[in-house]
Amino acid sequence: MTDFSRTRSLFYLPEGVIYLDGNSLGPLPLAARERVARLMTDEWGGLLIKGWNKAGWMTMPRRIGDRVGKLIGAAEGTVVMGDTLSIKVYQALASALELVPDRKIILSDSGNFPSDLYMAQGLIGSLGNGHELRIVEPEEVETAIDATVAVLMLTEVDYRTGRLHDMKALTGKAHAAGAVTVWDLAHSAGALPVDLAGAGADFAVGCTYKYLNGGPGAPAFIYVAPHHADNVRPALSGWLGHQAPFTFDLGYRPGGGIDRMRVGTPPILGLAALDAALDAWEGVDMTEVRRQSIRLCDLFVAEVEKRCPALRLGSPRDGGKRGSQISFLHEEGYAIMQALIARGVIGDFRAPDAIRFGFTPLYIGERDVLKAVDILDDIMANRLWDVPEYRQRALVT
Amino acid sequence: MTDFSRTRSLFYLPEGVIYLDGNSLGPLPLAARERVARLMTDEWGGLLIKGWNKAGWMTMPRRIGDRVGKLIGAAEGTVVMGDTLSIKVYQALASALELVPDRKIILSDSGNFPSDLYMAQGLIGSLGNGHELRIVEPEEVETAIDATVAVLMLTEVDYRTGRLHDMKALTGKAHAAGAVTVWDLAHSAGALPVDLAGAGADFAVGCTYKYLNGGPGAPAFIYVAPHHADNVRPALSGWLGHQAPFTFDLGYRPGGGIDRMRVGTPPILGLAALDAALDAWEGVDMTEVRRQSIRLCDLFVAEVEKRCPALRLGSPRDGGKRGSQISFLHEEGYAIMQALIARGVIGDFRAPDAIRFGFTPLYIGERDVLKAVDILDDIMANRLWDVPEYRQRALVT
Repeated sequence: MTDFSRTRSLFYLPEGVIYLDGNSLGPLPLAARERVARLMTDEWGGLLIKGWNKAGWMTMPRRIGDRVGKLIGAAEGTVVMGDTLSIKVYQALASALELVPDRKIILSDSGNFPSDLYMAQGLIGSLGNGHELRIVEPEEVETAIDATVAVLMLTEVDYRTGRLHDMKALTGKAHAAGAVTVWDLAHSAGALPVDLAGAGADFAVGCTYKYLNGGPGAPAFIYVAPHHADNVRPALSGWLGHQAPFTFDLGYRPGGGIDRMRVGTPPILGLAALDAALDAWEGVDMTEVRRQSIRLCDLFVAEVEKRCPALRLGSPRDGGKRGSQISFLHEEGYAIMQALIARGVIGDFRAPDAIRFGFTPLYIGERDVLKAVDILDDIMANRLWDVPEYRQRALVT
Repeated sequence: MTDFSRTRSLFYLPEGVIYLDGNSLGPLPLAARERVARLMTDEWGGLLIKGWNKAGWMTMPRRIGDRVGKLIGAAEGTVVMGDTLSIKVYQALASALELVPDRKIILSDSGNFPSDLYMAQGLIGSLGNGHELRIVEPEEVETAIDATVAVLMLTEVDYRTGRLHDMKALTGKAHAAGAVTVWDLAHSAGALPVDLAGAGADFAVGCTYKYLNGGPGAPAFIYVAPHHADNVRPALSGWLGHQAPFTFDLGYRPGGGIDRMRVGTPPILGLAALDAALDAWEGVDMTEVRRQSIRLCDLFVAEVEKRCPALRLGSPRDGGKRGSQISFLHEEGYAIMQALIARGVIGDFRAPDAIRFGFTPLYIGERDVLKAVDILDDIMANRLWDVPEYRQRALVT
């Protein structure tokens, strides 16, 4: 039985803050602070260059990849850390396309995170070979999978609405049509049970600064199904993906399996923080996280709909059909969110009109949900959002 | 007048260690430790998601890029931080090739860092358009530049020997032949004066964990000459290179100038450490760093040649023709370096036979050089390297 009061004690949450934005940036795990301090002083400071061997820096991408793999149904040796999610999308998509050389269509949907679409557009421009990015609405994906599709590239949980794709069903349909799949797990990893192996996913990528609490700009991960891993050509063929990086050959020879998806020198500060952050998952049952997440989301929806009629639900009502976040829509969403933040309820805003709230059982409970609704109710009932300063948009929304 | 005793006091150097490997990983700046601790507690911990605006995280890649730019002769707004050096090589090369669409040759040399060559090979594989990587010997580069060359891609300072290319002359020759240039400054930035604008360089890239002391896996940088910056197509077109990332458009529109070379969410822990590390350069005159570096290198060469005849110089003898490192060659180089490290003299080994020593005036002085030679002399004269344990190769050499 997962003890959520224990997991809550592992995070630093400022006094007076109800943090409903862990779907964007998870809060600081106390262990990460300690781990990074130790890295700075004892490892970088004390070991200097020897840290690569003696502190195990060089093997962190694989070792931590295995830890992430456990949370997403990936076997040992199939996940590696590094770079950013956008770079990992590019790698996965470039390799995936070469597995289906006779087809030109990349199928995605308008609920995919824009950077995934942009990376596809950039890759298509480089390939110069007639590839096409076909973007349909999320509910049209299933019927759009046909024998022209080379790669089905989707984010499992929609960043705006929380809508959840059926990874297993869509992967099966893609395979039946002769396509391969690239799944973005940005809003899935740490939010709900993911079973990459069970779903037969070909490639998957994700970030670790959301539900995995790795810190701002924490390293991304990539998964390649074992039956593909030794066959794919890495488009971003960096030295740490080489079979023998320290022989300094002039010609690239890909490393075995997932190693070839490594590129450059790994970001050790970020990896150390993430490594410690992952400790929070020891003894945590993801099915219990999922059950509690749905309970918190359902409670939030019910209370907001009862008390704030001006807000329209922007997420699926059925808990089984969404991730761990809830969006409500309002044309003054931006200002409403600023008013909430000023009162200590931190969520975020996604253009054009969504206010987004993430519910993360590791550190958020029912009391937080009810208190957040009290404050939201007060703001809506008394139009506390209707002040000019809350309409001034910041660089990052 | 640069005060090198002041700069030395800014770094943590363990008792009993003579650190001659700052050309691989710079030592810990005390300010970086403080800065990262503050980032963890006050910013990530205290500000949570608000750190992106309130702590200026989102603008760090440009702000720190300008700080690096000052050290490499780049105007404000022409350098941006992010990713790893290998990724930045790919970006620069992909954009450079599209500026010369009618030519297929990428000219490089065998002294380039292998990852740069590997990234070129990976890009060529994706382009599938008949491009060719032509690798010549370093001394043949000048004569190999002809009207078939699309891009001249070189590392200014050879990672093995320290040999220094003449960036201005080779760039001029490349331009005269109708080619564009990509310069890797991994062993130049912070080691010697670099004048990208004066040399007319088109693209430049580099890492920051060597002479810039940004920490293990610190973020890389990319420079694009102002007259190219608004014209190049970013192959790695991530959301933070978009003109307006937070409008979440489905189509990519490149940001203005150097911004389009941003890709994904920036690695804030690494950027914070680097930002603090760059403080060490305030009040430092790079021409004095260069003069002192040559003095230290010359002293090392003279003393080693006098006392250790079994070691053969693997670097240019003329200080003006090398970077800030010295290599000596010996077939038992690996074991010799292990023996040195066991005695507190930290350099490194590069296959097949080079022992490498970096000389970094910010924290290394004449006394360190002489003491290091004493220990090397003892090891060579008494064959202290000749024990089995020093021959066992570690993962990272």
